Amino acid sequence: MLKPSVLLLAGFAFLPAAAAAANVAKVVQHAAYKTSVATLDREHDRIVQDIVTLTEIPAPPFEEKARAAAYLDMLRAAGLADVEMDEEGNVMGLWRGSAPAGGPVVAIAAHLDTVFPAGTPIKVKREGNRLSAPGIGDDTRSLAVLLGYVRAMRAAGVRTGRDILFVGNVGEEGPGDLRGVRYLFGKGRYKDRIKTFLSMDGTDGKRIVNAGVGSRRYRVTFKGPGGHSYGTFGLVNPMTAMSQTVVDLYKIDPPKSPKTTYAASVTGGGTSVNSIPDQAFMEFDMRSVSAEALATLEKSFLGIVAAAVAGENKARSTREGPVVADPKLIGDRPAGGTAESSDLVKIARQAVAAHGLTPELTASSTDSNLPMSLGIPAITIGSGGSGGRAHSLDEWIDVEKGASLKGMLPGLTMLLALADLR
Amino acid sequence: MLKPSVLLLAGFAFLPAAAAAANVAKVVQHAAYKTSVATLDREHDRIVQDIVTLTEIPAPPFEEKARAAAYLDMLRAAGLADVEMDEEGNVMGLWRGSAPAGGPVVAIAAHLDTVFPAGTPIKVKREGNRLSAPGIGDDTRSLAVLLGYVRAMRAAGVRTGRDILFVGNVGEEGPGDLRGVRYLFGKGRYKDRIKTFLSMDGTDGKRIVNAGVGSRRYRVTFKGPGGHSYGTFGLVNPMTAMSQTVVDLYKIDPPKSPKTTYAASVTGGGTSVNSIPDQAFMEFDMRSVSAEALATLEKSFLGIVAAAVAGENKARSTREGPVVADPKLIGDRPAGGTAESSDLVKIARQAVAAHGLTPELTASSTDSNLPMSLGIPAITIGSGGSGGRAHSLDEWIDVEKGASLKGMLPGLTMLLALADLR
Repeated sequence: MLKPSVLLLAGFAFLPAAAAAANVAKVVQHAAYKTSVATLDREHDRIVQDIVTLTEIPAPPFEEKARAAAYLDMLRAAGLADVEMDEEGNVMGLWRGSAPAGGPVVAIAAHLDTVFPAGTPIKVKREGNRLSAPGIGDDTRSLAVLLGYVRAMRAAGVRTGRDILFVGNVGEEGPGDLRGVRYLFGKGRYKDRIKTFLSMDGTDGKRIVNAGVGSRRYRVTFKGPGGHSYGTFGLVNPMTAMSQTVVDLYKIDPPKSPKTTYAASVTGGGTSVNSIPDQAFMEFDMRSVSAEALATLEKSFLGIVAAAVAGENKARSTREGPVVADPKLIGDRPAGGTAESSDLVKIARQAVAAHGLTPELTASSTDSNLPMSLGIPAITIGSGGSGGRAHSLDEWIDVEKGASLKGMLPGLTMLLALADLR
Repeated sequence: MLKPSVLLLAGFAFLPAAAAAANVAKVVQHAAYKTSVATLDREHDRIVQDIVTLTEIPAPPFEEKARAAAYLDMLRAAGLADVEMDEEGNVMGLWRGSAPAGGPVVAIAAHLDTVFPAGTPIKVKREGNRLSAPGIGDDTRSLAVLLGYVRAMRAAGVRTGRDILFVGNVGEEGPGDLRGVRYLFGKGRYKDRIKTFLSMDGTDGKRIVNAGVGSRRYRVTFKGPGGHSYGTFGLVNPMTAMSQTVVDLYKIDPPKSPKTTYAASVTGGGTSVNSIPDQAFMEFDMRSVSAEALATLEKSFLGIVAAAVAGENKARSTREGPVVADPKLIGDRPAGGTAESSDLVKIARQAVAAHGLTPELTASSTDSNLPMSLGIPAITIGSGGSGGRAHSLDEWIDVEKGASLKGMLPGLTMLLALADLR
């Protein structure tokens, strides 16, 4: 039989703000919490060392294996149960609560992958409290902070009602297309047990991402017969159909609320200046915080592609063959959100405020998109401290102890509140 | 004092077809011509060997130096005077006629460069009479045939009234943009003396190119501030201005006569699917046999670029900066033609017909474009034999002796007719 507080978490719909505050207040006044914080404080240098160690293991999209293996060992060393790598490459370990085995789980995840291709120099450069290296803040610091939480909770003898699943997941960045969390919620062994999801991504401790910007991304390849620019002038040109697509897409005035956007972003094609090209491609990004608005935009877009191709085939000769377009979906992040009125957001705000920070609700595209799209309460939070230049070679974080610790505590606080600290 | 026949050549405007025929008939009946032909016949294998030797010396655009140096030595060995390499890299030697030094010159040129980049395998593969290698027919065979002419004329004791300049020129292919002949007629030491120009390019012995298709080629780079596709949606996008340019260009219905064409051919740009690009480029090719029609088209095109940029800056936000376009001229081949009624074309037709072939007048874009644009009579002729797949890795020629010799003779005949065979 599930305990009442477990039932409350699973539904979690009608917790008044006062109750959330009480929940959070209970955590921050708890002796085991205070001991955990003292451990985090004492272990600061070890967390920094873990950040460096993990950052220097390359983890390009689809090549997270080496870092995943190292993180698996670290999760095991931290004392978690059931440590494993799933078929997609995610690694995880379970913090057992006192509830009967197999009940609801609070999951907290940081992503293993970086945007940087194999061969990118990733040696960490340290200048005082400033550490620079590709991927160090997005999202390697979070991986180390989760380990810090586990060790601190163990050292303090923390007891929770619910199980907590600590995850290092693959596939958050662009081409990974959320494959890690997609597996976690679609096929993984905890797929029906995760009732609350926290993604720790980026550093800002006061930021709470509760709106998931969905995206649909296409690479459209336009093909035609090609030919000599002078000798076969008058034949259809795939470049023209492609250009018409861009022009017509940019005539769309998308809703400002729910915010919906598009972009013609990357292009290439053609062989020589004196040839009608036989093919060219364009990549398109479409986003919205509303799944419905995104679907409407996508439908318009695909109609525009078809009309542009038809128009070109009508405007010029198809005697050597027509222009055709092949729109290939290369990115699919579902839109979704976790309501401000939800218990999860209430607790998160209280946990941030409890540490003297002003919570900021925001929209972004993160691993939380996936559970949000499934109706599972999910938010994305920060790992603490500060940082910048994510996705660039001069990415950096600041690991000054005071700010780092302060920024780490909202996450620990909400995690323990959600997991029913005993 | 110039001899009457020299004056005739310099003006060369009112030679009736009958006179051209008589001129050509005089050549083909001349004993020295017949001896020259016998020498070409006897030296067939040597010409083939020269083709192989020269083909196997790489000559990418702007890297013709090694082949030019080898050809320089061969021109000298063939017995020409004043053998030299000019500052542009063209190599040449003078066949002295009996007229006083410094008078009008008939120039015959083959181009040294191929379209193939450094590192392309260029070993000649021989199967019977079929020789395959990149550049072998376009235009290496012509280089060897010119050497054959010189040796045969020397062996036969040919005497001409006028000087003949034998040239191996650089820069005929695409990026070279006619830099070799541009120098020859603009700065070279013979620039004011060349009154008739023959380009030997390609193999077909019956083809006479007397219309030069002019081209103006642009690479237009469109730049803007760029930004995050979602976070900064609404900013101007250079991709849109570029696409509008293509769409509007393709609304132009250019004249069919004089034939005028355009193409949007090569494109690239953008950094990632989720970014508004900060730049993209498109290459455009415009051509016409009429310099005036080409200029009209070019003016329209540049107007379209400017309007597309202005339209984009009006349609979206320029708060982070506007879209700008930088149209860079990357190709400029002047249009021109040598009239069918000109003495040069009359003599060329007679010379082709004298060897049992049916002359074919055609339009193309070759080194002759440049002198044509200056009003200097110029045509492009073939080196003989057959060939195919020019500009491809499996380019080939056939060197069967009968067809090769037959195809070589129109060139020699018209050359000697133009140079006033004595």
